[in-house]
Amino acid sequence: MTLSPLDPRLAATFPPPVMEARRWLDETVLPEGLPLLNLSQAAPADPPPPPLREAMARIVTEDPAAHLYGPVLGLPELRERVAADWSRAYGGTVAPAQVAITAGCNQAFAAALTSLAGPGDAVIVPTPYYFNHKMWLDMAGIEATLLPTDADLLPDPDRAAAAITPRTRAIALVTPNNPGGVEYPAGLLDDFRDLARTHGIALIVDETYRDFHSADGAPHRLLADPEWDDTVIQLYSFSKAYRLTGHRTGAILTSPARLTQIEKWLDTVTICPPQLGQRAALWGMENLSDWLAAERSEILARRAAIADGFATLPDWQVQGCGAYFAYVRHPFETRSDAVARDLLAKRAVLVLPGTMFGPLRDQGGDGRAETTLRIAFANADRDGISDLIRRLAG
Amino acid sequence: MTLSPLDPRLAATFPPPVMEARRWLDETVLPEGLPLLNLSQAAPADPPPPPLREAMARIVTEDPAAHLYGPVLGLPELRERVAADWSRAYGGTVAPAQVAITAGCNQAFAAALTSLAGPGDAVIVPTPYYFNHKMWLDMAGIEATLLPTDADLLPDPDRAAAAITPRTRAIALVTPNNPGGVEYPAGLLDDFRDLARTHGIALIVDETYRDFHSADGAPHRLLADPEWDDTVIQLYSFSKAYRLTGHRTGAILTSPARLTQIEKWLDTVTICPPQLGQRAALWGMENLSDWLAAERSEILARRAAIADGFATLPDWQVQGCGAYFAYVRHPFETRSDAVARDLLAKRAVLVLPGTMFGPLRDQGGDGRAETTLRIAFANADRDGISDLIRRLAG
Repeated sequence: MTLSPLDPRLAATFPPPVMEARRWLDETVLPEGLPLLNLSQAAPADPPPPPLREAMARIVTEDPAAHLYGPVLGLPELRERVAADWSRAYGGTVAPAQVAITAGCNQAFAAALTSLAGPGDAVIVPTPYYFNHKMWLDMAGIEATLLPTDADLLPDPDRAAAAITPRTRAIALVTPNNPGGVEYPAGLLDDFRDLARTHGIALIVDETYRDFHSADGAPHRLLADPEWDDTVIQLYSFSKAYRLTGHRTGAILTSPARLTQIEKWLDTVTICPPQLGQRAALWGMENLSDWLAAERSEILARRAAIADGFATLPDWQVQGCGAYFAYVRHPFETRSDAVARDLLAKRAVLVLPGTMFGPLRDQGGDGRAETTLRIAFANADRDGISDLIRRLAG
Repeated sequence: MTLSPLDPRLAATFPPPVMEARRWLDETVLPEGLPLLNLSQAAPADPPPPPLREAMARIVTEDPAAHLYGPVLGLPELRERVAADWSRAYGGTVAPAQVAITAGCNQAFAAALTSLAGPGDAVIVPTPYYFNHKMWLDMAGIEATLLPTDADLLPDPDRAAAAITPRTRAIALVTPNNPGGVEYPAGLLDDFRDLARTHGIALIVDETYRDFHSADGAPHRLLADPEWDDTVIQLYSFSKAYRLTGHRTGAILTSPARLTQIEKWLDTVTICPPQLGQRAALWGMENLSDWLAAERSEILARRAAIADGFATLPDWQVQGCGAYFAYVRHPFETRSDAVARDLLAKRAVLVLPGTMFGPLRDQGGDGRAETTLRIAFANADRDGISDLIRRLAG
């Protein structure tokens, strides 16, 4: 019996989809002789490359500060390095005082939102959404104003403009998109920035997957605007580039005035970002650019393999494909969550259903949730992708 | 210029005191020839002992899973170990399903509160308070109902009972206390548990410093109650015992039903606790009990040295002393924050003023904030403590 009170806000959102998928795995007997093809989580399946692991072992052994508290807003050397690299990569000016390090990119989103909005406010979120964004908004009592996307999974600034109310505090975009895979064009991001600026609200741009963008230059011009920090809040993760998911290292780029407020919240939530992850991220930025370029090439090759493979499956439709993800329409009558459990039980393929990324029809959805699946293909090599296509065809 | 909105809730609380103290250090020219005696932060000044650092280097090199995402509620082996050790140490029954690992103990507090209370609710907090608890409540829009403590820094259950209203969701205690140092007697904790249970509210007990308690047996009987998890929420930190502050590893013990809700919040805030810290904590629990016993003896010896030292300073009054802290009344006419800055500038001693731990008189305070200092003595060896006493006498 639980006597002490349970606040209703946590009950207002759904359980973590990735943990739900882990429970499916525990409950399901896989078909004999068919190894699991786990394409559920957007995360590297392998540890960091050996030179980075060796550097981390040296840091643990030789650097006492790696074990102690550090500044709430992160390691100054890492903030400086991000500012310098970002200024070059995006053709703009990013100062170290505009960068804070967080315990992962989800925390960066939570910090941004906490600085922007409270119960009763609203934030515009395209669907399909990244489920952790939706969960955070639900738990914070902030309305997620859902913005259905077009057939190409791109949100429309005019539809967003029509959805803005006096309660709206921000528009939150993810590019390359999770779960959609789609890369938002630079011009579209300009339009959203202009829309946000006109209304005095924030434009949050989560670029967790930017290191795997197919464009060779800057993927957008937002940070080339000298006044970018009056409107744009950029989020980033070191987890995907350097395979540091277990070390919890992300970043938030915004105005120094906002970071002064965010510092209070981060102090009470984690005191400081984990120290080893920060040092590993810095070492990666300093030493792994060639390695990361090769990683990106490999992911882009896998993306091409996914496109080629699905071209042979006429009943399936790829709606978006990029970075780690393909977002596809399945050919079955049953709802996507039943399809996903069926694919696991019968073909040993674990992918997440559209029901985890958007509202059902009876919740006001546009029907996409029921008919789609997210395939986190980045964890399969090209043989694995061929195998996936065979299993889906079978 | 900041166009995009700043939510007023973050502005409603004060900046992180430890960062404020770091700014004092940056701004102050220390007296020539006098080395800094930094007794401001409640944290080990040294890294983990060499065998643990070596174990961590091996984990980083050899255990791929230490670099990858893990379960939101923590490493199963660590949850099991905590459950087993706690069951023995407290003479009760703690199941692994009642334990979750968090990215530090501040996060455990935030998770507990998020599951208990929302804007407009209230939580009873004795003063002087741990400042991060007050900051979290302010930012969450939860009223901190401040409960002045008696001369011995112990809260009175009858005064707490009188402060309970229909909005009250919990009572939050810290034992051994930060900042007061005082160890709450087992009977007092029983009384608070009974009070909370009678009112159907939670009793949060933050035991970050429990490894340095002066009692040899269980410091309380709360977990020996078979129904403990209907009322009690215990918080813990691995940071102090094993010197893992930079790795962010804490724990929360509560009912499985509450953890199911907390899992959602932790998923969106950090996805999983940092993996290396969890493995280091487990290694520490398995291998460092003798080392930790020696650490505790040394801290208890420092505590005795503080008591002996202040006995020679008749103008100073020790109000509480234990674990890492002495909470003392200073002999000056000026307010404690001016005293603290003066001690830094003139005697190169950095301690935190009572103004960081409770309300001023004109905010309804009882006068303690203005007249007291917190001395985090655990970071000074016995020579350092003699030096402190000489500097305060001078």
